[in-house]
Amino acid sequence: MFADLEHVLRQIEPLDAEWARRAETRQALLTKPPGSLGRLEELANRVVTIQRSLTPTVERARIVVFAADHGVTAEGVAPYPSAVTGQMVANFLAGGAGVNALARIARAEVQVVDIGVASDLGHVAGLHQRRVTAGTRNMAREPAMTREQADAAIAVGLEMGREAIAAGVDMIGLGEMGIGNSTAASAVTAALTGLPVASVTGRGTGADDVMLARKISVIEQALQRHRPDPADAFDVLVKVGGFELAGLAGVVLAGAAGRKVVVTDGFIATAAAALAVRMCPAAGEYLFAAHRSPEPGHTALLTMIGQEPLLDLRMRLGEGTGAALAFMLIRAAVAAFTEMATFASAGVSNRADPSDVPV
Amino acid sequence: MFADLEHVLRQIEPLDAEWARRAETRQALLTKPPGSLGRLEELANRVVTIQRSLTPTVERARIVVFAADHGVTAEGVAPYPSAVTGQMVANFLAGGAGVNALARIARAEVQVVDIGVASDLGHVAGLHQRRVTAGTRNMAREPAMTREQADAAIAVGLEMGREAIAAGVDMIGLGEMGIGNSTAASAVTAALTGLPVASVTGRGTGADDVMLARKISVIEQALQRHRPDPADAFDVLVKVGGFELAGLAGVVLAGAAGRKVVVTDGFIATAAAALAVRMCPAAGEYLFAAHRSPEPGHTALLTMIGQEPLLDLRMRLGEGTGAALAFMLIRAAVAAFTEMATFASAGVSNRADPSDVPV
Repeated sequence: MFADLEHVLRQIEPLDAEWARRAETRQALLTKPPGSLGRLEELANRVVTIQRSLTPTVERARIVVFAADHGVTAEGVAPYPSAVTGQMVANFLAGGAGVNALARIARAEVQVVDIGVASDLGHVAGLHQRRVTAGTRNMAREPAMTREQADAAIAVGLEMGREAIAAGVDMIGLGEMGIGNSTAASAVTAALTGLPVASVTGRGTGADDVMLARKISVIEQALQRHRPDPADAFDVLVKVGGFELAGLAGVVLAGAAGRKVVVTDGFIATAAAALAVRMCPAAGEYLFAAHRSPEPGHTALLTMIGQEPLLDLRMRLGEGTGAALAFMLIRAAVAAFTEMATFASAGVSNRADPSDVPV
Repeated sequence: MFADLEHVLRQIEPLDAEWARRAETRQALLTKPPGSLGRLEELANRVVTIQRSLTPTVERARIVVFAADHGVTAEGVAPYPSAVTGQMVANFLAGGAGVNALARIARAEVQVVDIGVASDLGHVAGLHQRRVTAGTRNMAREPAMTREQADAAIAVGLEMGREAIAAGVDMIGLGEMGIGNSTAASAVTAALTGLPVASVTGRGTGADDVMLARKISVIEQALQRHRPDPADAFDVLVKVGGFELAGLAGVVLAGAAGRKVVVTDGFIATAAAALAVRMCPAAGEYLFAAHRSPEPGHTALLTMIGQEPLLDLRMRLGEGTGAALAFMLIRAAVAAFTEMATFASAGVSNRADPSDVPV
């Protein structure tokens, strides 16, 4: 583990329960029956606790989209060709992808990082070029990456996370694009949770039955060959991970170290978040799970990191699309917390003490 | 039934399946695996079908909040005094309630209508004063309202719905405030669905066990005394309903007649929507169920009107707070539909026809 990563891991602090109590105290004063905003109250209280402020701000939001390719696609595990990864990078930068449309509605920035795309992208305006190498190796035959490559990819994630913090971003969303990356995410999930591969592997972008069976078999073989240590997230990443997973894990750790709201997306982003949480459990306290994907491994990961997702809309696109939606819910939760009148200020009778206020 | 209501009911048309097919055809061209935006695709497709346009607009949103009191509160069925209804009207108009905060985030207008508040509100700037009378009568002893009052309250709803349409509102949200109205909504739910009262009655704003038992008993007695005809929504409304329920039902019908997106909120708003759907089943095709409340009757109503809610955040505040959140999801769905690039325009390889596009 490189020195900078060790430094970040030491910086991450568990949340302060005293701030959670302050948030709860204020919630009880607002003009609503206790608890009636449900999970919006939990969201706001956690933002207060993260930011250590009763007037938290979640105005500025950014989705960092890491794009990378996967050598394992040589095994025929994905219905789209690897070339689509690079084509979609161009689509992100042109503003034509799903995440772009949703981010516009959510007033969120989209930052695109080439952390390991295989195809030649040429010069593309707006792209953050941080390619570690042109995609992972084929995990069915050899470890997906070297330890040095994993270090480099995590370092890119730390850099992007810190850049967001320095720019004044309040909420960081996790986005990704990479043909073949649901194979890597399923392998990571099986490795981290110990669950059978078949129970955490789904159709990704649309594998048919034959392709799904092959995908499961390829992952089983890779895990058998490399035997990643479930307690060692770095080892799991090196052997069956991907560069976008490494980058996203770095963003999660940098975000947690900087006490920012970090919003996961779907299955791939949550696999990366789970790697970060395995490295540093306290990082999980800064995570907000945007949604539940129909990918079977997603629920296993959410359980592992102790998160209940905000949305369950059968979305399985990735890119940060779920994070974009979650930003809006978190902003709504914080707005209720900071902008609602209190029973006293609004002159509304509270059941607890009806004599206190004018009727 | 008054002539204007009959006219509106005749105006409401079932959706045109041809427009649904057009929407699906376009979804398949967008740069994402088929179906990968999940329920966002369903949302966008239905908006297309409602507006009969492949470039639908959901920019302008308004929540109409009807406030009314309930004579049944004399039976001790709610933990807050009736005076809170009027106090909350002032809070809405001052911008300090939950719905105001959420509507600001959702860029939605909040319109407040006194359709039957008991307390004297005096002159309040911005309030739409359409009071039918100062609250319903106590359903435990007599019908909640006269047929003439029900007509008048539905007419107010039709008026507010048409006003929204005339103003250019694209999405209409259903909001309400009324101490005691979860008792009315549970009575309406039991009457419409035939389910046992105890299975569709919850704690509302926070009834304790004793109060909940009393609430169930009061509703059972009211239904036994008045025997509303489940096939006749108007009869149910008159006997055990409320003025805000009548107003909201009118908004649903006017919205459906004007081919607008109509967004329900929690239990009370959905009870009103269910009354409208019982009057005119086709009106249900214009409804979008924002969220699922923990109130036990809500799920029964959602099943009755054939809706799967978008959110399940344990919210139970009402006011239109859930509708505000749903507006944002619908806007995101429509943005993806109208703004995403196609495989052809973005030069992204589609699995279906990889030879067609540059690689």
